[in-house]
Amino acid sequence: MTAQTRFTARFGLQHPVMLAPMAGVADATLAAAVSAAGGLGMIGGGYGDRDWLTRQIAGAQGNRVGCGFITWSLAKQPELLDLALESEPAGIMLSFGDPTPFAAKIKGADVPLICQVQTIAQARQALDAEADIIVAQGSEAGGHGASRGTFALTPAVADLVSEQSPQTLVLAAGGVADGRGLAAALMLGADGVLVGTRFYATPESPVAPALKNRVIDSAGDETIRTGVFDLARGYRWPQEFTARAVRNTFTGEWHGNEDALDAARTTQGERYKHAVAEADSSIVAVFAGEDIDLIHEITPVAEILTQMSDDAAALLTSHR
Amino acid sequence: MTAQTRFTARFGLQHPVMLAPMAGVADATLAAAVSAAGGLGMIGGGYGDRDWLTRQIAGAQGNRVGCGFITWSLAKQPELLDLALESEPAGIMLSFGDPTPFAAKIKGADVPLICQVQTIAQARQALDAEADIIVAQGSEAGGHGASRGTFALTPAVADLVSEQSPQTLVLAAGGVADGRGLAAALMLGADGVLVGTRFYATPESPVAPALKNRVIDSAGDETIRTGVFDLARGYRWPQEFTARAVRNTFTGEWHGNEDALDAARTTQGERYKHAVAEADSSIVAVFAGEDIDLIHEITPVAEILTQMSDDAAALLTSHR
Ligand SMILES: Cc1cc2nc3c(=O)[nH]c(=O)nc-3n(C[C@H](O)[C@H](O)[C@H](O)COP(=O)(O)O)c2cc1C
Ligand SMILES: Cc1cc2nc3c(=O)[nH]c(=O)nc-3n(C[C@H](O)[C@H](O)[C@H](O)COP(=O)(O)O)c2cc1C
Repeated sequence: MTAQTRFTARFGLQHPVMLAPMAGVADATLAAAVSAAGGLGMIGGGYGDRDWLTRQIAGAQGNRVGCGFITWSLAKQPELLDLALESEPAGIMLSFGDPTPFAAKIKGADVPLICQVQTIAQARQALDAEADIIVAQGSEAGGHGASRGTFALTPAVADLVSEQSPQTLVLAAGGVADGRGLAAALMLGADGVLVGTRFYATPESPVAPALKNRVIDSAGDETIRTGVFDLARGYRWPQEFTARAVRNTFTGEWHGNEDALDAARTTQGERYKHAVAEADSSIVAVFAGEDIDLIHEITPVAEILTQMSDDAAALLTSHR
Repeated sequence: MTAQTRFTARFGLQHPVMLAPMAGVADATLAAAVSAAGGLGMIGGGYGDRDWLTRQIAGAQGNRVGCGFITWSLAKQPELLDLALESEPAGIMLSFGDPTPFAAKIKGADVPLICQVQTIAQARQALDAEADIIVAQGSEAGGHGASRGTFALTPAVADLVSEQSPQTLVLAAGGVADGRGLAAALMLGADGVLVGTRFYATPESPVAPALKNRVIDSAGDETIRTGVFDLARGYRWPQEFTARAVRNTFTGEWHGNEDALDAARTTQGERYKHAVAEADSSIVAVFAGEDIDLIHEITPVAEILTQMSDDAAALLTSHR
């Protein structure tokens, strides 16, 4: 038994679960695995490496996947949207910035527009852009995001949508790692969920084993929203977005000392690059959500999806 | 039809809903109204006004209610616990501090010990203190709290409890304002919910109408976690706790300028007191959760409870 919703019906899925377009993580292999197992795979366009993106789009052919972009980054390389649209993706997700400049082209190509939002103000913007799916992302999410929590944001977005554009789908993101999270999201008015961290710790994920193991071994209390990894990597994110990651030596040294880090960015940038090459989780960002408390092992994608969906369906029929 | 759980069974309730022991808000009238309508009413011991507390405990007689304390404040007036225990309360809630120093006396009086926690580390402390109920409070909550979100904290606390002390009950707090929230909390592994903000905006609540209306008129995006109201009121909260309130002129002036506010605390404290007397919501703290998006009118307590419970039950049986 699996959980069926408007999202599964409209996208022809077995499970109402979308892979988060995680920069550097959601590649062809991971996205194809999610789609092949009945969810909706997404490739993470990230910070706009054209060659990498071309390879991933080609690599996922045969499986219907979508593609996600970091909106403020896409604005610097708008041609990447054309690249993605040529592959007739299952959807294009825009996160972290005003979707308006790109919406017409996506809608014009008859590709579903997916907008990830962190506030009600952004949800209104997404509706103005005629989003087909709005992802309500709470602060417990791994990676970049803002401050509102999944629990109250999801029903508020659902209410806005049902008032202004009832055919638009709503997904909840941030903290969903198992069937309980999926069932709860459906109760809050969502049509499904967007999942990142849980898929990070899979055999199909391209992340170095040492970093995956950090997700397995760490606790939600140990995560933090921070901008220090962006400074080290030279990404100039808009102030309103920080990224949730597992605390480590690097956050211990620099979180709260951002001005000093900015001043030392050349040497610290080198140190960071070196640590990436070594997969040194004491320095490298392990972007992960507060739901790592619920993640105890590396689990194959198909197993995660079946279990999540079955458990949700069982929970939803347990209270008769 | 109403949602029945281990919590309703063990406490003889109609609805798995506990009133949050809101300082200055959860008085005899509000607590009695919640209990009379089939939930569990709690009196908010707040910052330890003995006379006020004595009157509330007396005023609620005839209805089975509990009492909540701010733990670090109770430590300054431990005799208030004896006062509360003499009334044979339905439970004693300890929030914001180590419950250990008070646990033995509460358990010894055969009164259920309720601990409100914001992290897994605190949940462990609560289990060590032999809590009968653990309230997992997420950051979206109105009033004081910390940073973890309700959505991922609740199942993580439920897992810890089921491993170490399966008879302990778990309630979710932070963002629950309607039947969707209650149903979601149950899916996440909770036995019920603790609700604050929704009961703030009731006819039974003693809050000035201008402040209740601010809850009705404001949006979740407008709330903020801040320490400025504590500085203005002269309460020295431990650094780890801030309070969620609706942004207003006062937060606009002082949030982020806490050192300046501290330096100006005499005049600003006077200004704040004056504003309280006038119920001026541009200065006074309207403590409220991100769930104010879901609250559109002043609704009687009994109606809230019936609707929440019925809606949750209907949602939980809708996915067959
Ligand atoms: C490693 C990692 C990288 C991420 N990168 C992106 C990204 O490039 N673009 C994006 O829209 N969201 C990104 N996110 C956020 C996800 O879209 C999603 O909101 C989040 O993973 C959901 O919360 P969860 O991690 O608790 O499942 C990332 C998340 C993680 C964990
Ligand atoms: C006005 C107000 C005052 C509060 N005062 C207290 C308090 O004195 N002690 C306490 O343990 N919690 C207090 N809280 C927090 C509640 O216990 C509870 O966690 C919160 O209200 C749940 O989130 P919600 O407001 O979204 O329902 C207060 C909350 C509000 C809204």
